[in-house]
Amino acid sequence: MPPHIQPVALPKAYRLLNHGPTVLVSARHDGTDDVMAAAWACALDFSPPKLTVVLDKATRTRELALASGAFVIQVPTVAQARTAQAVGTASLHDRPQKLQEAGVELFDMHGVDQPLVVGCSAWLACRLVPEPHNQQAYDLFIGEVTHAWADSRVFADGHWHFDSAPPELRSLHYIAGGQYYAIGESIVVPGPTPD
Amino acid sequence: MPPHIQPVALPKAYRLLNHGPTVLVSARHDGTDDVMAAAWACALDFSPPKLTVVLDKATRTRELALASGAFVIQVPTVAQARTAQAVGTASLHDRPQKLQEAGVELFDMHGVDQPLVVGCSAWLACRLVPEPHNQQAYDLFIGEVTHAWADSRVFADGHWHFDSAPPELRSLHYIAGGQYYAIGESIVVPGPTPD
Repeated sequence: MPPHIQPVALPKAYRLLNHGPTVLVSARHDGTDDVMAAAWACALDFSPPKLTVVLDKATRTRELALASGAFVIQVPTVAQARTAQAVGTASLHDRPQKLQEAGVELFDMHGVDQPLVVGCSAWLACRLVPEPHNQQAYDLFIGEVTHAWADSRVFADGHWHFDSAPPELRSLHYIAGGQYYAIGESIVVPGPTPD
Repeated sequence: MPPHIQPVALPKAYRLLNHGPTVLVSARHDGTDDVMAAAWACALDFSPPKLTVVLDKATRTRELALASGAFVIQVPTVAQARTAQAVGTASLHDRPQKLQEAGVELFDMHGVDQPLVVGCSAWLACRLVPEPHNQQAYDLFIGEVTHAWADSRVFADGHWHFDSAPPELRSLHYIAGGQYYAIGESIVVPGPTPD
């Protein structure tokens, strides 16, 4: 297991996605692992935590997630921008060495039979919630988060610490054509909603 | 109409949301306007552009959107952080002066009978796609974007220009407890996906 990984309490797992980062989606079935990038992932509920992710019908990751009923959403870092772009543009269907070519290293966590990507800042292991109409009509998948972890250098005590963490741990926010934005500076609005 | 507003071609409208900003959701029905904040909004399709947004059953904006079959998703700026927090924590149900108290000014655009919020950086006017099961089970709403506009100082030629625009026009990305992150610096991964 890579260093710095700590569990995140499930009622706070939505915060790992709340700022809208581009994610990596990984899935495993019958000995095959795949990883893709997705800009269209979003929190859906607090407790139990749920999320949505759009998985195109052309992707091998979608087939693996459907077959296993599970997938992992993870938050890549600035240091992984080339990896995110590489797994987002190549398909395992026609590049069997896609993950090696993209420099993806995988690891396992106890209790989750799905592949996790080394070097990310957060991981949300999900059980696929069966919603065939959404999947077919919109490529829209719903996951219930069963386990969550984060790199404690950048997410601890239920909060991101981008301002004090190494800048290469900031999240990526994809636009198009290979262009991303890193997440920027913290802004706190004073008021009656402390936490 | 506020200055600097230019139409965005619909096939590029997804880019207004692709980096995962917190949004303001506005809706109008029968003479009543409301605006709420939502961190859980996400692009869903390219063309015709669609998006998802989670609208809690307690919100008046949801009722107005359901009654009119339409709503607007807009991208607030760093300069609007207090407004976003204010409309995200007060409800029109118990504060009839909510919009005035939050400093929200509205304007209209030709062809859209829905209120738009002055000072945002982008606006996506949507037709509600009826999906009662998603709305009831998950508070998940699907909109088809019918019109899109952006502030040309920060989004032009199909791309955000956060690095060269005034910093107060950066997008907001909510975490919890009044804490947001502004979007940060641009990162371009060279490769075969120019645009």
